[in-house]
Amino acid sequence: MATMFGERMVTAARDAGNCAVVGLDPHLDRLPSVFRERYVGRTGLSFRTEAAMAVLEFNRLVIEAVKGRVPAIKPQFAFYEELGSPGFSALEETCALAREAGLLILADAKRGDIASTAAAYARSILSLDGPFQADAVTVNAWMGADTLDPFIEVCAETGGGIFVLVRTTNPGSAFLQHHGQPRAAHALAEVLNKKGESLVGPSGFSSVGAVVGAMTGDEASELRDLMPAAWYLVPGVGAQGGSTDDAVAGARSDGLGCLVNSSRAVLYAPQDERAVYEADPGQWIAQAARALADRFQLDA
Amino acid sequence: MATMFGERMVTAARDAGNCAVVGLDPHLDRLPSVFRERYVGRTGLSFRTEAAMAVLEFNRLVIEAVKGRVPAIKPQFAFYEELGSPGFSALEETCALAREAGLLILADAKRGDIASTAAAYARSILSLDGPFQADAVTVNAWMGADTLDPFIEVCAETGGGIFVLVRTTNPGSAFLQHHGQPRAAHALAEVLNKKGESLVGPSGFSSVGAVVGAMTGDEASELRDLMPAAWYLVPGVGAQGGSTDDAVAGARSDGLGCLVNSSRAVLYAPQDERAVYEADPGQWIAQAARALADRFQLDA
Repeated sequence: MATMFGERMVTAARDAGNCAVVGLDPHLDRLPSVFRERYVGRTGLSFRTEAAMAVLEFNRLVIEAVKGRVPAIKPQFAFYEELGSPGFSALEETCALAREAGLLILADAKRGDIASTAAAYARSILSLDGPFQADAVTVNAWMGADTLDPFIEVCAETGGGIFVLVRTTNPGSAFLQHHGQPRAAHALAEVLNKKGESLVGPSGFSSVGAVVGAMTGDEASELRDLMPAAWYLVPGVGAQGGSTDDAVAGARSDGLGCLVNSSRAVLYAPQDERAVYEADPGQWIAQAARALADRFQLDA
Repeated sequence: MATMFGERMVTAARDAGNCAVVGLDPHLDRLPSVFRERYVGRTGLSFRTEAAMAVLEFNRLVIEAVKGRVPAIKPQFAFYEELGSPGFSALEETCALAREAGLLILADAKRGDIASTAAAYARSILSLDGPFQADAVTVNAWMGADTLDPFIEVCAETGGGIFVLVRTTNPGSAFLQHHGQPRAAHALAEVLNKKGESLVGPSGFSSVGAVVGAMTGDEASELRDLMPAAWYLVPGVGAQGGSTDDAVAGARSDGLGCLVNSSRAVLYAPQDERAVYEADPGQWIAQAARALADRFQLDA
């Protein structure tokens, strides 16, 4: 049987010495100009094909710069889908490069559907012979907790994991997530904990994780009580501006539990560092990844 | 300015004389065997590439068989994504064939994310120069009503539409959708109606629609009162077993309002009709589409 996701994530975090995740969100107009110039308008191929080539070469550089420094990368599917099939091809190759580099792949796809459709998404993203072979995927449970079962079945088989959207921190997030009494997000957290019970390993972590935004301590620890076995995927530090303390407020007492993602702040230099960045983007990104890793370092 | 989705949908339904939608859900093992035999194991290419070729040829047949009979098709993105980039390529070409055949494309992708990520999904699926150029897309609002704004902005620009997951009928659907008082789905319906107000055309339909499952009359008419301007996309007739009356329970008094989807019951013959199906799949599918169209005929 495959080693379960909870354990694989613990090993990867301990090996890297931190719980930081680098998001691979390609924004063509923010790539180092060398990548755009090498492809866009140069090959005679379609714009989307050229853009996907530039993105893949950039991702190759990023993976080289962050490998060994962080346990995982998080590709955001939307930015690849926007480039159509060449974008998906670049995403497949990016995942292959990440695997070779020993980085876990947390696929940020936020899929959610029923029955055979959910099973198709689960196989698509997590299968060991699928196009992406990711280690985990973000999932949306608005359609019901039953929609998670096909994902959990695939996880049991492949050693994959899911991060279910429980509580986010975008301006409108409370509308449905805090609806009702108990709050819908908290009702969901309780159900997720049960769903993950059969996939808890010796470390106490299960294959069923949660997306929980960086937030002040009270709700973070309330959710941790409801989901003691869940890995959290925490968006919203870096460019989105969450604080370090808020990002790890939901961690267990041993410091494990919150995988904190940063995308744009690691991939793209702000205007005043742009010249240094353009001169050696790999070095700038390695430096930014090191700073992120230091922020979310584990005690030895 | 582009003609808005609500109006385009009315025109397409009136032209076809019905509100039926054919779902394009390719299941490789259920395709007519001629399509599998022509490609799978025959080309020396990868399995996913061969499978995608078989799917595209099957979709070409389906589109030919249903064009003029129904107003729209609904490709389910999961089944294409499972085939990786060749699958997305087949989906892009399928969308192009549907456009040429004059069928509206309701992309069943159930995307949902925030800010620039939501914008990337909206552009991916709805842009007039994007890979899919769909007419509408299904969207998940669990992360908050603000996540719909980037989609609505793109709709205003392109004449596209969205169908937001309000109320589904899978076994676990009530868990979050009926949570709280008022029920979360009903709170959402009210917000959607407001969000769609600026995109209501002369027919009274807006660009902001809803996914509402086939259900008994009470909740269907309650939701219609909350969302008088919404096109509904109704899954769950055919193989999923909803009744005709339940499927259109949420329609307006003029009979418009519910787009009823059937996928497997139109695409694939049951075992006892399999021989006839294999002999002439195009004819069998045309016949099944005609029966579906008759069920959801509009009064002249």
